[in-house]
Amino acid sequence: MAYELHYWPTIQGRGEFVRLALEAAGAPYVDVARTADDSGQGEAALMRTLQDRHQPHPPFAPPFLKDGGLIVGQTAAILHYLAPTLKLVARSEQARVWTQQIQLTIADMVAEAHDTHHPVGTGLYYEDQKPEALRRAKEFCHERMPKFLNWFESIVVRNPAGPRHLVGGRLSYADLSLFQLVEGLRYAFPKAAEKVLAKTPGVIDLHDRVAALPKVAAYLQSERRIPFNEQGIFRRYPELDV
Amino acid sequence: MAYELHYWPTIQGRGEFVRLALEAAGAPYVDVARTADDSGQGEAALMRTLQDRHQPHPPFAPPFLKDGGLIVGQTAAILHYLAPTLKLVARSEQARVWTQQIQLTIADMVAEAHDTHHPVGTGLYYEDQKPEALRRAKEFCHERMPKFLNWFESIVVRNPAGPRHLVGGRLSYADLSLFQLVEGLRYAFPKAAEKVLAKTPGVIDLHDRVAALPKVAAYLQSERRIPFNEQGIFRRYPELDV
Repeated sequence: MAYELHYWPTIQGRGEFVRLALEAAGAPYVDVARTADDSGQGEAALMRTLQDRHQPHPPFAPPFLKDGGLIVGQTAAILHYLAPTLKLVARSEQARVWTQQIQLTIADMVAEAHDTHHPVGTGLYYEDQKPEALRRAKEFCHERMPKFLNWFESIVVRNPAGPRHLVGGRLSYADLSLFQLVEGLRYAFPKAAEKVLAKTPGVIDLHDRVAALPKVAAYLQSERRIPFNEQGIFRRYPELDV
Repeated sequence: MAYELHYWPTIQGRGEFVRLALEAAGAPYVDVARTADDSGQGEAALMRTLQDRHQPHPPFAPPFLKDGGLIVGQTAAILHYLAPTLKLVARSEQARVWTQQIQLTIADMVAEAHDTHHPVGTGLYYEDQKPEALRRAKEFCHERMPKFLNWFESIVVRNPAGPRHLVGGRLSYADLSLFQLVEGLRYAFPKAAEKVLAKTPGVIDLHDRVAALPKVAAYLQSERRIPFNEQGIFRRYPELDV
């Protein structure tokens, strides 16, 4: 049975980390909210699950995954759950927990990237918090981005199995997620990101290697890949690229 | 061998979620940065590990756990790793992933609670972002706190094994973490939290049940429990309790 991915239909957002894993593994899945409503799918199906009062394990928010009767929410938990089946994580408990740790650190950086355009509140428009966004973006670009990317560089360089992957000698979902993080940073902060990435060649190499994987390359060229836009987590507001 | 917990010595912070799990399970551990420097421990030992250039799996930030030669960072990953040994999670993969999902949602709320006093940047003082903090705190108290706490209420009420626990019929680290979240909200936002918690009796009952567990009660009375203060994640700034 195909997996059901439930996520907002018009943005990459956090759902993209799950999409990339499913696509890279060639796993069958339905992107529910992007499927026609009259098929019983669509955003209405996502909302039905979210609001189902009889669901004992309701997700707090999208993305969530349905695998038969099982529902899993939280991006990092979804990836941790899917990875053994998709062969996107090594088998040992130690490798699984290290991969998860990297994913959670990527998630932390993604949240901080989001907060550059919404520092005061997610319920307000960007236009209502522009001066605050600029202050926050400065700290993000000058302090946080180097700190995070240097950490990713250090772990890819130190990987005992070599710098072709983050964990061991094969592709994991952490590699895919780091690729997506770099994509997002380059989209949102083209100048600031290039400046920092110039000092993290291992991260760039890993990004390029993931982009060249046949299944990933085909996905990125397809209509299934939603373009970045100004409703997602990574937004190109030139005034914040400082 | 005793676990080594590495975390900042003067705040509860994210380390507290790990401390609570270790304490509730009666597991032997050393709170490294709070142990005398001249024993080779202390904050210097934490910094040594953090800055060790030969460490293949360096943590990005505290808290991190050392279990013999293994190092695990990221609070949710530490708990996920420890829980089977500490008997703080059910055995099935499905229960483990659900427990993790709850923990990650608690972590999201903790991050938002932190951002009420540091919306513009973690590198700046609270005093340099007070107007922004007030705007963010208003959204947190009026929108986010009810949304999160209602979700916790719904999952405790819907637990098929009964509302005494979040997952199944026995204590898990998610219960301990929800207890700590309620403690933090009550400390930082006494008025706003009471208002919301009045509508989530299941969450309060669970909190009280955890507080009454003999090992937890003993820990809370001990000097090992650091009091809340204005350097941690949860800070009592009365002007933000709106």
